[in-house]
Amino acid sequence: MPPTYRNFRSHVPWLILCLEAGFIALFYLLFSDYDAFRSSISYPVFQDVNHMVIFGFGFFLTFLKRYGFSSTGFNFLIIVLGVQCSMLTEGFVDFLLQREQGDVLKSITSAAVSMTAVLISTGAVLGKANPLQLILMAVVEVIFFHMSRWINTTFLQVPANVSMMHVHLFGAYFGLAVSSCFSEPSPRSEKNASTLKSDLLSMLGTLFLWVFWPSFNSVFTVGGKRRAIYNTYFANAASAVTAFVLSALTTENGKFRMTHIRSAVLGGGIAVGYTAHSIEHPWIAMILGLLSSVIIILGSYCSQRCLNPALKIHDTSGIHFSFGLPAMLGALAQVVLLVIKNWTTSPRLGYLVMIHVAAFCQTISAALITGFAAGLVLNLKPFKTIPVSKYFEDQLYWEFPHLAVGF
Amino acid sequence: MPPTYRNFRSHVPWLILCLEAGFIALFYLLFSDYDAFRSSISYPVFQDVNHMVIFGFGFFLTFLKRYGFSSTGFNFLIIVLGVQCSMLTEGFVDFLLQREQGDVLKSITSAAVSMTAVLISTGAVLGKANPLQLILMAVVEVIFFHMSRWINTTFLQVPANVSMMHVHLFGAYFGLAVSSCFSEPSPRSEKNASTLKSDLLSMLGTLFLWVFWPSFNSVFTVGGKRRAIYNTYFANAASAVTAFVLSALTTENGKFRMTHIRSAVLGGGIAVGYTAHSIEHPWIAMILGLLSSVIIILGSYCSQRCLNPALKIHDTSGIHFSFGLPAMLGALAQVVLLVIKNWTTSPRLGYLVMIHVAAFCQTISAALITGFAAGLVLNLKPFKTIPVSKYFEDQLYWEFPHLAVGF
Amino acid sequence: MPPTYRNFRSHVPWLILCLEAGFIALFYLLFSDYDAFRSSISYPVFQDVNHMVIFGFGFFLTFLKRYGFSSTGFNFLIIVLGVQCSMLTEGFVDFLLQREQGDVLKSITSAAVSMTAVLISTGAVLGKANPLQLILMAVVEVIFFHMSRWINTTFLQVPANVSMMHVHLFGAYFGLAVSSCFSEPSPRSEKNASTLKSDLLSMLGTLFLWVFWPSFNSVFTVGGKRRAIYNTYFANAASAVTAFVLSALTTENGKFRMTHIRSAVLGGGIAVGYTAHSIEHPWIAMILGLLSSVIIILGSYCSQRCLNPALKIHDTSGIHFSFGLPAMLGALAQVVLLVIKNWTTSPRLGYLVMIHVAAFCQTISAALITGFAAGLVLNLKPFKTIPVSKYFEDQLYWEFPHLAVGF
Repeated sequence: MPPTYRNFRSHVPWLILCLEAGFIALFYLLFSDYDAFRSSISYPVFQDVNHMVIFGFGFFLTFLKRYGFSSTGFNFLIIVLGVQCSMLTEGFVDFLLQREQGDVLKSITSAAVSMTAVLISTGAVLGKANPLQLILMAVVEVIFFHMSRWINTTFLQVPANVSMMHVHLFGAYFGLAVSSCFSEPSPRSEKNASTLKSDLLSMLGTLFLWVFWPSFNSVFTVGGKRRAIYNTYFANAASAVTAFVLSALTTENGKFRMTHIRSAVLGGGIAVGYTAHSIEHPWIAMILGLLSSVIIILGSYCSQRCLNPALKIHDTSGIHFSFGLPAMLGALAQVVLLVIKNWTTSPRLGYLVMIHVAAFCQTISAALITGFAAGLVLNLKPFKTIPVSKYFEDQLYWEFPHLAVGF
Repeated sequence: MPPTYRNFRSHVPWLILCLEAGFIALFYLLFSDYDAFRSSISYPVFQDVNHMVIFGFGFFLTFLKRYGFSSTGFNFLIIVLGVQCSMLTEGFVDFLLQREQGDVLKSITSAAVSMTAVLISTGAVLGKANPLQLILMAVVEVIFFHMSRWINTTFLQVPANVSMMHVHLFGAYFGLAVSSCFSEPSPRSEKNASTLKSDLLSMLGTLFLWVFWPSFNSVFTVGGKRRAIYNTYFANAASAVTAFVLSALTTENGKFRMTHIRSAVLGGGIAVGYTAHSIEHPWIAMILGLLSSVIIILGSYCSQRCLNPALKIHDTSGIHFSFGLPAMLGALAQVVLLVIKNWTTSPRLGYLVMIHVAAFCQTISAALITGFAAGLVLNLKPFKTIPVSKYFEDQLYWEFPHLAVGF
Repeated sequence: MPPTYRNFRSHVPWLILCLEAGFIALFYLLFSDYDAFRSSISYPVFQDVNHMVIFGFGFFLTFLKRYGFSSTGFNFLIIVLGVQCSMLTEGFVDFLLQREQGDVLKSITSAAVSMTAVLISTGAVLGKANPLQLILMAVVEVIFFHMSRWINTTFLQVPANVSMMHVHLFGAYFGLAVSSCFSEPSPRSEKNASTLKSDLLSMLGTLFLWVFWPSFNSVFTVGGKRRAIYNTYFANAASAVTAFVLSALTTENGKFRMTHIRSAVLGGGIAVGYTAHSIEHPWIAMILGLLSSVIIILGSYCSQRCLNPALKIHDTSGIHFSFGLPAMLGALAQVVLLVIKNWTTSPRLGYLVMIHVAAFCQTISAALITGFAAGLVLNLKPFKTIPVSKYFEDQLYWEFPHLAVGF
């Protein structure tokens, strides 16, 4: 290890410590005291979301064979830092706008949900970014996400709970844009692969996400909470079945592929995110779930074969098709359902549709632009991008006293 | 792989897709809209049950060393399909009987609980049935279980929540009957075994089941919900202790055997299933838990040494003694407690006892008959039973890009 | 195996069975019936605590490479026995003092929380004590803990919910005292180590503990439940960040060490245990969390290099610095916050401080004295202490039909 690198290493922890000290100071200024004793969020549902973010994503991303510690550990580090950062950003906006605050549980939950965007982006640079880059990405992305959300709710009048569901869209495209600035790993790299055990742990994480997705989609819904739960459940059920079907159809000999299952079982929940509280019939949610799986499996072919090589993007966990495409489908479904519902009654239909399309375009373009900028900055010299040969290696970041045979 | 088999493979996904499309169409007809905004089921308890079914059973069954993907994956596929099927069956019955419906959360929970029967049956044919057979078994079993339950509640006046607890009994005997139609694996097969890691994952699943069993037993109880929770907890605690004791007593050198622990720790919860809401003293529940462990460990000896070889049944996860016998003990306890309680007061005691015995016999005979019929049909030629040499193999169903050393 | 040892083995299960039979008999006498249908504990929060105790601690302790079955299995056995023992002890005290009882869910939860003391102590003798020793230790420790708690609440007027939080302190020092009576393992023992997979499972357990700690700290709080949840969350978040920072600062090359992360991420939750319901600003909780991580990492150096070799204590999971030191910090913080709050107003400040310090000293000294006594008794001949060469071995207690390669 060259001395400059060692020197860099010794600075990283101090930077994180300063960040944490800064957070504490800002908490002192912004969250002076807890005044609320009641919250609009139920504690068990908050725990579901908390559980899902920490375990679900933590283990969802452990599929790389030599990157299990980092996937779980850095995911956890990013969440605990990001939640604080997100709460401060929201608190700062509330302070600027002189809005009343006080529902701390709602703030924490909202911060945990916002962090989903970062965790999705992390998936794209998994194994390629070092911890410092991940932390800075998390801080920057959370702030940009809140800005994009604020534009949506203030200027485009998107309801607060719907604007929160843009996390998937924002996270996927921000992650792709950041990823495009990192070098591609060698296609023959044998480290960019999974083992049976790492795939099984990743399946465990996926099941956690699947089980808690109804809580995730309904946590901020005010009217129609129950409906949001049911629709998410049905959409997820349909997309899980379709994931198995399509995996068998698209592989040789009709076998199932674990990556297909992992990417596609969650599609339904993402796709109904925007509309879960308003869909009135289970079959609509189920059709959305079915379509989202179709889009994900087709998308995984197209992006891996055409799109990613053409754009020189390497997307480790396939977040583009797992999260980006179903979120797009969801946005489309939102517009279609709006048109069907208000076809005859509303004279402002065109305006309403435009608002939705604008919010959607604003989110994607904000994600792409800020993501690309963040990616460029993160690849500057002071951040010591790791060389391609060291990608996907736990040993770069963790002490390994274990014998090699123990693996 | 012979061409006819490949041809068969290519048809399976389309069949599943048609099934899912049929389900969506039936949902369109039967569950036209969500009218209820309140439910008699609390959302956190529903999540416990959901969690337990997906994780608990998913990982409970991962003990086979080369069958981890299939155990977890197919368990999940069967649940998502089966829950839809179960909801439709119940919805259809409600429609026929002109009963009001609307409590969607209750329907989903009830469907998830009914699926337990299928998951138990799956344990008996684990590693032997192919996915198509499993799915058809799930669909058929759920429908038959609802029919048997309907007979119990309508003609024998069994309360709805008690009739639901027949899942264990129905699942175990249906599974055994189906299993009797499959060829036995070679007794020297080294694939029908566990590794340390697969046993540990299976223990994880068992603990999930143990922790959530109070929610499972109390979810449909109307009066005495708290009592159902406490009795289940105490019964499970006593049976866990007894499981360790008996395992050490029955093995050489007084060591513990993981399969004993796994089968017996849940016995108490199953045994008090029928009576959890009415037992008034914790010590009764604890004695039931203790007895259930005794029966399970003794039963595991008898069935593996005498019963199964005599009847030529191969029961991969030992569901007969893990679920069937404690459920029988529970049924017996229900009758005994009824007699003790109403010894002097009720003139209709004989009639009441008869009703209970009848419900119990009806469930077992329905399970055995329909299970045997289902087993015969599933072994017909179009379903391509897998050859004995290919039993307990993930590689038959899943793509394995992993290096062998990674395991 | 010598015949006397085999003879000993054959007696152990009968002893456990007698214990369980005694428990059932005492339940018959003390908990005659369930009279309460309402409870002051919410069922989902009880489930969180239950979950945390069984999974969290079960998997937190699985880091030893050849001790996974025993860590998880014996942890479970101890909990189910200990919860019954703890409920009986509390029931007996209630009976003696003629206090009304009836809130069974509260009793179970209180028993599960008390068991944390035992689970912490188990960490110190992990791999060194045999199951009989563990069970006796559990029974004895739970009784002593309740006595110490009773002294605190009765004579020192410590509120019931705060006195419960002495579990960490009691557990850590009881465990250390017991451990000092066991022989030290050979420092070159290669079995006292972890593998990648066992570290990852242990991380899973730690995350479980981390996620459910807010439920643990708030479950018995009467006023300020919400505050207890928030403060615990913030303290844990700050200590998680600091754990990563300090791990990188104290290891060579700035790498992270899994044992640091595992010990330190929970520090904040432990440190705010006594004051979580009364701290009014998040930044105070965060500073406590930060300091607790500092103390844990520094403590891990001091105890492993100086204290433990000097005192000839071998502390397998490092419970002294993971649980003992942050609990001490919490006690100190409690006094400091009390002084700051009542500086000018209360004339009885000195008295109040004294009470707190007395409760704290009473707990530690009770833990050390009873722990040392228990350790001496457990090392008597009838308990067949296992030889040092057999430490950290699953094979001593479990049947291993698995092929060695499967590991």
